[in-house]
Amino acid sequence: MKKGKIYAVGIGPGSREHRTLRAVEAIKESTGIVGYKTYIPLIEDLIEDQQVHRLGMKHEVERCEKALSLALQGKTVSLISSGDAGIYAMAGILFEVIEKNNALGKVNIEVVSGVTASSAAAASLGAPIMHDHVSISLSDLLTPWSVIEKHLDLAGQGDFVISLYNPKSKGRPKHLQNATEILLRHRRKDTPVGIVINAKREGESVKITTLEALPTEEVNMFTMVLIGNSNTKILGDFLVTPRGYDL
Amino acid sequence: MKKGKIYAVGIGPGSREHRTLRAVEAIKESTGIVGYKTYIPLIEDLIEDQQVHRLGMKHEVERCEKALSLALQGKTVSLISSGDAGIYAMAGILFEVIEKNNALGKVNIEVVSGVTASSAAAASLGAPIMHDHVSISLSDLLTPWSVIEKHLDLAGQGDFVISLYNPKSKGRPKHLQNATEILLRHRRKDTPVGIVINAKREGESVKITTLEALPTEEVNMFTMVLIGNSNTKILGDFLVTPRGYDL
Repeated sequence: MKKGKIYAVGIGPGSREHRTLRAVEAIKESTGIVGYKTYIPLIEDLIEDQQVHRLGMKHEVERCEKALSLALQGKTVSLISSGDAGIYAMAGILFEVIEKNNALGKVNIEVVSGVTASSAAAASLGAPIMHDHVSISLSDLLTPWSVIEKHLDLAGQGDFVISLYNPKSKGRPKHLQNATEILLRHRRKDTPVGIVINAKREGESVKITTLEALPTEEVNMFTMVLIGNSNTKILGDFLVTPRGYDL
Repeated sequence: MKKGKIYAVGIGPGSREHRTLRAVEAIKESTGIVGYKTYIPLIEDLIEDQQVHRLGMKHEVERCEKALSLALQGKTVSLISSGDAGIYAMAGILFEVIEKNNALGKVNIEVVSGVTASSAAAASLGAPIMHDHVSISLSDLLTPWSVIEKHLDLAGQGDFVISLYNPKSKGRPKHLQNATEILLRHRRKDTPVGIVINAKREGESVKITTLEALPTEEVNMFTMVLIGNSNTKILGDFLVTPRGYDL
């Protein structure tokens, strides 16, 4: 039997034009597709006769098990993540599930990287990252809040540009407010902040504000929050962090 | 006169298949292309009758000025970066040059994000990022080394996964060694480290090692160094950072 293959595919922010060609090729070459049901419509144009397995939120382990079981039957499977497959996404849990099932070496694996939400949001804001930067997820489903607080505090101390993933959901309405308070220990109140809902996909909205004025009530689970460092500035409609060139 | 447009395009790691469709469209739509001469061959297949302006390393400001002057003539120009245009790349300096020339609003600007080197290297290693992570450039051309040291120390304290950009060049042969020593204040000697030369482009090589054994002599300016957190592990040929799922 031919060895099966799993592509852990990052489809980027969601619109067709921000996918990579490798992601398109992988999905087209697959006979099976496994993904979170909300993401499958984003790749509907690539679905021909692949068998599609739509699973719910929080069923990440089952998604990986499904992909593995198909690959162990010799099939080629795409396991879908939005953004980059290796950033708060499916690639890591896939390797863990494969190892737990003693299947390392029994299937081929290729991680297909994509444009992560932080890059997509930054592009819509201008150029807020540019320099040393930190990505932090405010979801405490898998990480104790005390660890997240420590990460926020150190990122604040270090004057890093900060990208907040998963800034809010129904289960954690206060996390973003708490994060803002931690960062205000280290950053000026007028530190520029960019808020992008649905970055680089349908329904995008972009707002530039400050750390003190951050409208936490406008932030939802489809939002990225990017917090500037002490040099970040607002130029016209854009948020820009200078890297230090002498002009 | 039609308003000119500048695309700040991230072409991703370098191979055709890891570009986004938006990057391809932007370059094809442009009548002018401005880029570092080493990157232009990476997009040779997209060049038809655009005028191509190849500039040298360290001429970042001139590249932006060239793109702006073409756009002010009503042209559509692609300003090329490798990786993501907004991460240690051309987008930021472009906005600064435009502002300095009082040209904000006089030209249209679109930042086209791409797969950044950190994501590309991670995909070739397995899934080493996955969790909260820090990107740090070891280039002190534009940032004082004392700031870089502080960033390394805080990233070490925070147990972040760390991506090192620009880990070495002729002008700074010892920086990676110094960075390793700073991280060893906080991390175990056997912390897994991934080294990827030419990630996701021709001539790729991948190595998994440890912080203590990091072969700094093998690292060059085309290399990404990814340092795991305290949970990162080696599974078969892969480097994987668990996010915390209960298996």
